[in-house]
Amino acid sequence: MIGGGKDAFIGAVHRLASNMDGLIELSCGALSIHPDVAKESGKLLFLPEDRTYTDYKEMLENESKMPADKRIDFVTIVTPNFAHFGPAMMALDKGFNVVVEKPITLSLEEAKQLQQKVTETGLTLCLTHTYSGYPMVKEARQLVKDGAFGSIRKIIVEYPQGWLSKLSEREGNAQAAWRTDPSKTGKSGSMGDIGTHAAHLAEYISGLKITQVCADLNIVVPGRAIDDDGNVLLKFDNGSNGVLIATQIAAGEENALKIKVYGEKGGLEWHQMEPNTLWVKWLEQPMQVYRAGSGYLSEVAKHNTRVPGGHPEGYLEAFANIYRNFALTLSAKLEGEKPTEHMLDFPSVEDGIRGMAFIENVVASSQSDQKWYDYQI
Amino acid sequence: MIGGGKDAFIGAVHRLASNMDGLIELSCGALSIHPDVAKESGKLLFLPEDRTYTDYKEMLENESKMPADKRIDFVTIVTPNFAHFGPAMMALDKGFNVVVEKPITLSLEEAKQLQQKVTETGLTLCLTHTYSGYPMVKEARQLVKDGAFGSIRKIIVEYPQGWLSKLSEREGNAQAAWRTDPSKTGKSGSMGDIGTHAAHLAEYISGLKITQVCADLNIVVPGRAIDDDGNVLLKFDNGSNGVLIATQIAAGEENALKIKVYGEKGGLEWHQMEPNTLWVKWLEQPMQVYRAGSGYLSEVAKHNTRVPGGHPEGYLEAFANIYRNFALTLSAKLEGEKPTEHMLDFPSVEDGIRGMAFIENVVASSQSDQKWYDYQI
Amino acid sequence: MIGGGKDAFIGAVHRLASNMDGLIELSCGALSIHPDVAKESGKLLFLPEDRTYTDYKEMLENESKMPADKRIDFVTIVTPNFAHFGPAMMALDKGFNVVVEKPITLSLEEAKQLQQKVTETGLTLCLTHTYSGYPMVKEARQLVKDGAFGSIRKIIVEYPQGWLSKLSEREGNAQAAWRTDPSKTGKSGSMGDIGTHAAHLAEYISGLKITQVCADLNIVVPGRAIDDDGNVLLKFDNGSNGVLIATQIAAGEENALKIKVYGEKGGLEWHQMEPNTLWVKWLEQPMQVYRAGSGYLSEVAKHNTRVPGGHPEGYLEAFANIYRNFALTLSAKLEGEKPTEHMLDFPSVEDGIRGMAFIENVVASSQSDQKWYDYQI
Amino acid sequence: MIGGGKDAFIGAVHRLASNMDGLIELSCGALSIHPDVAKESGKLLFLPEDRTYTDYKEMLENESKMPADKRIDFVTIVTPNFAHFGPAMMALDKGFNVVVEKPITLSLEEAKQLQQKVTETGLTLCLTHTYSGYPMVKEARQLVKDGAFGSIRKIIVEYPQGWLSKLSEREGNAQAAWRTDPSKTGKSGSMGDIGTHAAHLAEYISGLKITQVCADLNIVVPGRAIDDDGNVLLKFDNGSNGVLIATQIAAGEENALKIKVYGEKGGLEWHQMEPNTLWVKWLEQPMQVYRAGSGYLSEVAKHNTRVPGGHPEGYLEAFANIYRNFALTLSAKLEGEKPTEHMLDFPSVEDGIRGMAFIENVVASSQSDQKWYDYQI
Repeated sequence: MIGGGKDAFIGAVHRLASNMDGLIELSCGALSIHPDVAKESGKLLFLPEDRTYTDYKEMLENESKMPADKRIDFVTIVTPNFAHFGPAMMALDKGFNVVVEKPITLSLEEAKQLQQKVTETGLTLCLTHTYSGYPMVKEARQLVKDGAFGSIRKIIVEYPQGWLSKLSEREGNAQAAWRTDPSKTGKSGSMGDIGTHAAHLAEYISGLKITQVCADLNIVVPGRAIDDDGNVLLKFDNGSNGVLIATQIAAGEENALKIKVYGEKGGLEWHQMEPNTLWVKWLEQPMQVYRAGSGYLSEVAKHNTRVPGGHPEGYLEAFANIYRNFALTLSAKLEGEKPTEHMLDFPSVEDGIRGMAFIENVVASSQSDQKWYDYQI
Repeated sequence: MIGGGKDAFIGAVHRLASNMDGLIELSCGALSIHPDVAKESGKLLFLPEDRTYTDYKEMLENESKMPADKRIDFVTIVTPNFAHFGPAMMALDKGFNVVVEKPITLSLEEAKQLQQKVTETGLTLCLTHTYSGYPMVKEARQLVKDGAFGSIRKIIVEYPQGWLSKLSEREGNAQAAWRTDPSKTGKSGSMGDIGTHAAHLAEYISGLKITQVCADLNIVVPGRAIDDDGNVLLKFDNGSNGVLIATQIAAGEENALKIKVYGEKGGLEWHQMEPNTLWVKWLEQPMQVYRAGSGYLSEVAKHNTRVPGGHPEGYLEAFANIYRNFALTLSAKLEGEKPTEHMLDFPSVEDGIRGMAFIENVVASSQSDQKWYDYQI
Repeated sequence: MIGGGKDAFIGAVHRLASNMDGLIELSCGALSIHPDVAKESGKLLFLPEDRTYTDYKEMLENESKMPADKRIDFVTIVTPNFAHFGPAMMALDKGFNVVVEKPITLSLEEAKQLQQKVTETGLTLCLTHTYSGYPMVKEARQLVKDGAFGSIRKIIVEYPQGWLSKLSEREGNAQAAWRTDPSKTGKSGSMGDIGTHAAHLAEYISGLKITQVCADLNIVVPGRAIDDDGNVLLKFDNGSNGVLIATQIAAGEENALKIKVYGEKGGLEWHQMEPNTLWVKWLEQPMQVYRAGSGYLSEVAKHNTRVPGGHPEGYLEAFANIYRNFALTLSAKLEGEKPTEHMLDFPSVEDGIRGMAFIENVVASSQSDQKWYDYQI
Repeated sequence: MIGGGKDAFIGAVHRLASNMDGLIELSCGALSIHPDVAKESGKLLFLPEDRTYTDYKEMLENESKMPADKRIDFVTIVTPNFAHFGPAMMALDKGFNVVVEKPITLSLEEAKQLQQKVTETGLTLCLTHTYSGYPMVKEARQLVKDGAFGSIRKIIVEYPQGWLSKLSEREGNAQAAWRTDPSKTGKSGSMGDIGTHAAHLAEYISGLKITQVCADLNIVVPGRAIDDDGNVLLKFDNGSNGVLIATQIAAGEENALKIKVYGEKGGLEWHQMEPNTLWVKWLEQPMQVYRAGSGYLSEVAKHNTRVPGGHPEGYLEAFANIYRNFALTLSAKLEGEKPTEHMLDFPSVEDGIRGMAFIENVVASSQSDQKWYDYQI
């Protein structure tokens, strides 16, 4: 693991999620660039001292020289956005598969280089767009795929958070500090941090691709260096329209990602904060409430569920689904087998490219006076 | 009553709502231009035969000649949009106060003429934007007014319906037929029919005014003559931003008007389909659930409630609030008293102007390639 | 109307509900035994002075001598429980139909006498168990009747309120005062006031009859003269079991009547505070959400609905359904026609008998050491 | 681990939960008494062959002879109820701490013997009453403890499931088979399997103890050998009353454990299927919605939460909380430290005694004609 020292939020999440199924073991770490933190964090995680590093380069170098049966199989990169690209490129170069937090890089250009490297090395890269790991999101995707609703006509996805309602980056909040610093977070705050999740979810469920955007990004909290709020009108490749809202100044909201997809015959609604429920709506028929863990769900939903209906699964289980599918893919590859479709169902470098494209196109659109901005990748 | 013959939707609603408090009695009607329907409808409503008309002009003429104690006090106009202006102008000319369905007229120009007539005659015009009649909407407005949330930063209002998901206007649905016919409904379908309610609600609760729009209106169902779907980015006069979504092709949705308003310190959320609840959100404190009929609510919410907490009120009661406030205003005026602020709390001709302006500006914006369209009234 | 002077809760509800459909007109009243209140209340309701009484006997006497076309058709009795029986008996004797608040009388014995009088006179008595007036309750009953769930196995009905959490009867709360005074309210507080609604709802929806009870009634608030809380185990005539909870000391609850009915193949759930929704549950299939006003509902649900789906109806509409069905029944009878099943769908004197039996059996059971108490009527 | 071979439900849950925090490692197993299953299960879990047993006695014998640094620290017992006592006693005898599924044993008598053994050995026993592991349950307990609601007056806990609506034990459902077989599951089906969870939750949150019960246990599905449904009236040691409903024939329900606790000044409500929310109700003030992961929660809630607000945690995290607290307790003891109150916050052998007492008293009450049955332990 690169990054994710003690007190880091997302590093801990990665460890909890990757532990869950007993398929993955943390073996070494460059958990912090601060030697003290790195050392203490390693100890807390029961890492051997000689595999506790402060420099990811040293770690990748050393680990690559270990015998195959001791060496790590993949590297997880949970540093701030600006520090994804370097470690990811080097890891691939050294022959390690990679798990990387979203957004994949700081720029679309970097993402493209990474894609090329993945192609060259034949290694596997997994991007942790957590929300597509939920079983009911997979059920939603399957329903759309199966044509349950006919052609999709409209998508509304909103992602309101309230945690940046104050100028917390000036009040010692480390998370807020890097996430609102353009040099560390990238070109957009609201869209890089959460809008890209929303865009991925919309495309993942609908199977459609965004082709045009009309964006309004705002710095709402005075003194902030980057947008903390944004609204985007969307057009998809089948001609349908949509709206994406991502804001971090919605005071009183936690992490209220919600999506609604409408087709000719019905639609669906899913709320991340009540993730085990999928509302399936029908024209002129009663709405149905699909529930995770139920016997009537699709194979893909079942493959991504651990407990029976009524035993709620959450964010960590969704995260663990991404890790499990990634691990199953690696195992299959190691054993010379072809990973199944279910195994390969985790976000890839291609999703990383689309995420970076989303950010860059939305930013460009927001700066433009023209209404519709054609998506450029 | 003008319009609202048997089988009409909104005419029946007006009667149910105006009956409720025992303050208003239906005395005459030009309920339909079809003599048979007019006659039968009058009979069903226990109207005297000699006050059952087929022509609103005849009705207004006759009624205006009646002695003051027998004559009607006001006229309710529930015809399709294109037939609001004529009766309203004539009613005012003949000295009758007016209740008119929204949108107030077919065009902003007509609305302005009507406003001038109202000013000239000193009579009262009431526009039935029902949703501002709900007590918890009034509570929401009061909370914002009292500064509970600090300055308002963002408003998201969505109004999805699914009833026009098919080309019902070609399948004998009379409601669908006139509401999708530009000559009868006006320049926009989705925005005239429901978007204008959403815009009114946003302005009513926030006390802000829309100043710029960026609209995307769509004809989603092939063969339809007018937009049935639209998304609008908003700017308000305090610099805050918003999103308004109005669609009639959201298959499986009923009448799911929802609004979220966010300020510096918290925000609120209200759903028309669960109208007795107001979710009040706070930064770093638990959300509160305000409930209609509770003792802790503001005076204005209490004034607009009929039963104690836990006894749900609905759409007809909200509608009846508008009628009751209007009736109390007329009574006060008749008795030479100044109506109180609570009495005057019903949508007026000024709200009608803003509604028409919303429609026209959104249509103009949708046709423009320019991103932001300055509101013109 | 007998009782229901200004500031009375339920009298106002009866007027709002009976006004709604324009079928019923308030013509006279003995609204209070206090002459001042009676007079002022009459004025507020636009009653003629000569039909504003202080004594119900005088009113019934006078009104019975009026010519048929001016005379009232029925009397509504909204006095406290102890003052139901006298007016109801006299009204029937004088040839008037009767609407009476629940519980029908102070004792089962009185209820039986009333039943006999109804039989003798051939007049119609309507008991306002409001909650069975909701369209989704009628849909629930229809689903059970149609065998959708197979044989019913279990019913859980709970009715928690919090308004008697304090000794409000000693703090000037007039409602609390009479409702906790055994001489005015009858043998049980919690069961008479709300438990009887819950029992009626359970029997109405399921079509089953309670045959045994095991009750635990409690005086929770020290100093109170009558039970304010109770739990009852139930057995029904098909051998199924149930639980009924009625409490007025559930601090923080409004009027949270909820019922769950389970059968062999599925079940249903309904909440009075969100009355337009009926949750329909299925074994091994997704739950469905039935919504008032939808086209797929049964005829009886539609007959008891006024507005389309998504326009919430509430408590007053449910109440108005009882009045409307009662009025339609009277009209049919007046015109020598047989009322339809839909018209006759309002609680009758037989339901009043069952309500009183419920109260008396539960009280007897609560006082007994024996577990199961056979229902005696 | 003893029991929990492949396809077992609860064994897998224990592994997922104990993996999560990286504090516990599965080292050996007697996962099945069927050698093939045991072997295959061990392989799937990456257990060394020489630590994959088919006989728990052999396992405990062997492991107890291993050197301290290789030997397991504790044993998890996830066999059917009848096979808890033997392994637990032997494990304690051999010096191992124990985690055991609920109900702790087949009879109260066995539970008492186990308690004595725990006392004698000074070892730690942890009982997995999962539901008390949820952070919002801990918050609820803390609010009651802090006196937020004043004295507790009433508790309603219901636990409806639908999975035994059919005679599944005759249709090859292995879970149903042992859970409805009195020789394997104990004296009660519904109360042993789920009622005991509900009773534990009620006592855990309220801090009260059940002192009297009045129970109605039923075999609802014809042909079943043990109760699948039950309703229990409760009295607590402070004189307050309650109701407990546990049923497995509520067709269409998943695992819908819900609890409501009412005090003098307010109350709380928690639903297992939406576990990150705690509804906190107040007399005459708006209800508050407490959410897991929020900064305003108590220390104990925070200690039992892994991710920030809005990132839902679920059943496995609640389970993992029990394991983590147990592991932290063992660590502290190993290092000679006194475990903190937070560490010791997991169900113990004393809770096991109360659970068995609940089952036995409820069964005895159900068989009695007497209304109230005094709790005997």
